[in-house]
Amino acid sequence: MKYPNSGKVYEKPNVYAGNRGMSLEEDINRTNRYYLSEDFAVIHKKPTPITIVHVDYPKRSAAKIDEAYFKLASTTDYNGIFKGKYIDFEAKECESNTSFPFSSIHPHQIEHLRKVTKHGAIAFIILRLVNFDKDFLIKANDFIGFYDSTTRKSLPFKWVEENGFEIPRTYTKPCDYLSTVVKVFGV
Amino acid sequence: MKYPNSGKVYEKPNVYAGNRGMSLEEDINRTNRYYLSEDFAVIHKKPTPITIVHVDYPKRSAAKIDEAYFKLASTTDYNGIFKGKYIDFEAKECESNTSFPFSSIHPHQIEHLRKVTKHGAIAFIILRLVNFDKDFLIKANDFIGFYDSTTRKSLPFKWVEENGFEIPRTYTKPCDYLSTVVKVFGV
Repeated sequence: MKYPNSGKVYEKPNVYAGNRGMSLEEDINRTNRYYLSEDFAVIHKKPTPITIVHVDYPKRSAAKIDEAYFKLASTTDYNGIFKGKYIDFEAKECESNTSFPFSSIHPHQIEHLRKVTKHGAIAFIILRLVNFDKDFLIKANDFIGFYDSTTRKSLPFKWVEENGFEIPRTYTKPCDYLSTVVKVFGV
Repeated sequence: MKYPNSGKVYEKPNVYAGNRGMSLEEDINRTNRYYLSEDFAVIHKKPTPITIVHVDYPKRSAAKIDEAYFKLASTTDYNGIFKGKYIDFEAKECESNTSFPFSSIHPHQIEHLRKVTKHGAIAFIILRLVNFDKDFLIKANDFIGFYDSTTRKSLPFKWVEENGFEIPRTYTKPCDYLSTVVKVFGV
């Protein structure tokens, strides 16, 4: 894996390349459905938080929300249970070639990860490096440790490579993060 | 507590009666904010699931969702972590004087409770008997046991009184279900 300082490098991997083009969210949702179908874990994406301002109730048809706005998420997007443990994570795609900007993750979400970690959660971030076509699991504790101690505005990919854990892909589990959780958190 | 066969009985309780009129959801959200502020637990209501059909992006103002529809929830409304344990529950208000209709809780939600219980969650239903002004915690396992073994279409309040656990109310914690969780699940 190379992190060039200039120019884009598209190293096409030859594993499940056919799946690329799917978003990280789609890959995680598909993986979660597989986990659920195998009764391996119960993990869901939370719905997008919105503020509903007006709902129209036409006769003989479904209620239609005709005015609503996106609301800031106060938690991460995914949580659930695996091997009796509370699982909590945020997933982010990153199109940079060098680092993941902290501005891409909201301070509320970092605070949420901090809180659930303190309460004993298995908490992490899944980061997809789009241009390198790789997904990494970063333990919330490691991420927060770096975040708290740096004056930088972003997480360098070099740090991700050294401190993160690459997540394997299979056809049925296009982002098999729980296999990484088993190794990394020892559950 | 009486369950009359006919007529409504409004036994006004004299504890925190000033709070009544708030919905169960508001009471639980307020309690969850208190738990969070005391760093006692991290439990959130999930956003209402919707399908967004169209979003308008006017210049210089926030994106406006102008066509969306409510979607069936595939999970319960609340989950989080308490004392290192995964917590999962559904909350329902019931205006009947005799029983809670099973039609008020979606089969998907019952299946979800069944799954998370199997994976080791602390799972339950909070039932507010509106006309009796009382809230009960019912263990998911107990609820499912009754649900699976009956031909009835509803859960009798008599059963709730015998098998459920009344949830205390305080000013700061208008639905202090975690104090009940501690007693009932022994965490």
